[in-house]
Amino acid sequence: MVDTCERLDTVFRALADPTRRAMLRDLAAGPRTVGELAAPFDISLAGASKHIQMLERAGLIQRKVQGRVHTCRLDARPLHAGAEWIRHYERFWNRKLDALETLLEAEDGGKSATKSARKPRSPRRKS
Amino acid sequence: MVDTCERLDTVFRALADPTRRAMLRDLAAGPRTVGELAAPFDISLAGASKHIQMLERAGLIQRKVQGRVHTCRLDARPLHAGAEWIRHYERFWNRKLDALETLLEAEDGGKSATKSARKPRSPRRKS
Repeated sequence: MVDTCERLDTVFRALADPTRRAMLRDLAAGPRTVGELAAPFDISLAGASKHIQMLERAGLIQRKVQGRVHTCRLDARPLHAGAEWIRHYERFWNRKLDALETLLEAEDGGKSATKSARKPRSPRRKS
Repeated sequence: MVDTCERLDTVFRALADPTRRAMLRDLAAGPRTVGELAAPFDISLAGASKHIQMLERAGLIQRKVQGRVHTCRLDARPLHAGAEWIRHYERFWNRKLDALETLLEAEDGGKSATKSARKPRSPRRKS
């Protein structure tokens, strides 16, 4: 449980930055050296390295060292824990919408029963 | 685009802490006052307020003030952007697994064609 919790902390923290998300996007196209990963950004190599280390700590990057060349490869597996966590609350939100739907329909039914004529309800705004 | 990017930053940052995730879990059961949200944790009310403010900035909490009572309510909608971002990389990961499957099957086929008899391949380890 602690492990999953810590994994979620590091994964969400890794994703909470546009540079790191862009690096992951790059890596989805194929492995990149540290220099290649840093190139699109107006940051120092040291700055880029810090971002890469955060991705590594989250398990989202696997680094292979050959001499002086460090090659990074995306490992998307740790994202599953994050996705699962979020999905739980999506379900919650969907349930709320279903409950609202049922409530509005019940309200409609009740009003139809007590009133012989009524204006049609305006369509529910899509969120 | 910038707005979505900033929203992703604040949502993922909000989720990158076990106290804030626990607060969201509590709020999924129903609205809570700030005091109720803070109660399960060994932190000061000021510390809890900081966490609540981060959730508010991410749009995950809506606060209603009635006199001195601040009531918080979960708003799960901003999670959709985060879920969508992660889902993109889940698809990437699934594609990689499909490619591996195809590769292993092709390798199996090739070996069967050149060898008349071979040991059955051990089942692929589930990741």
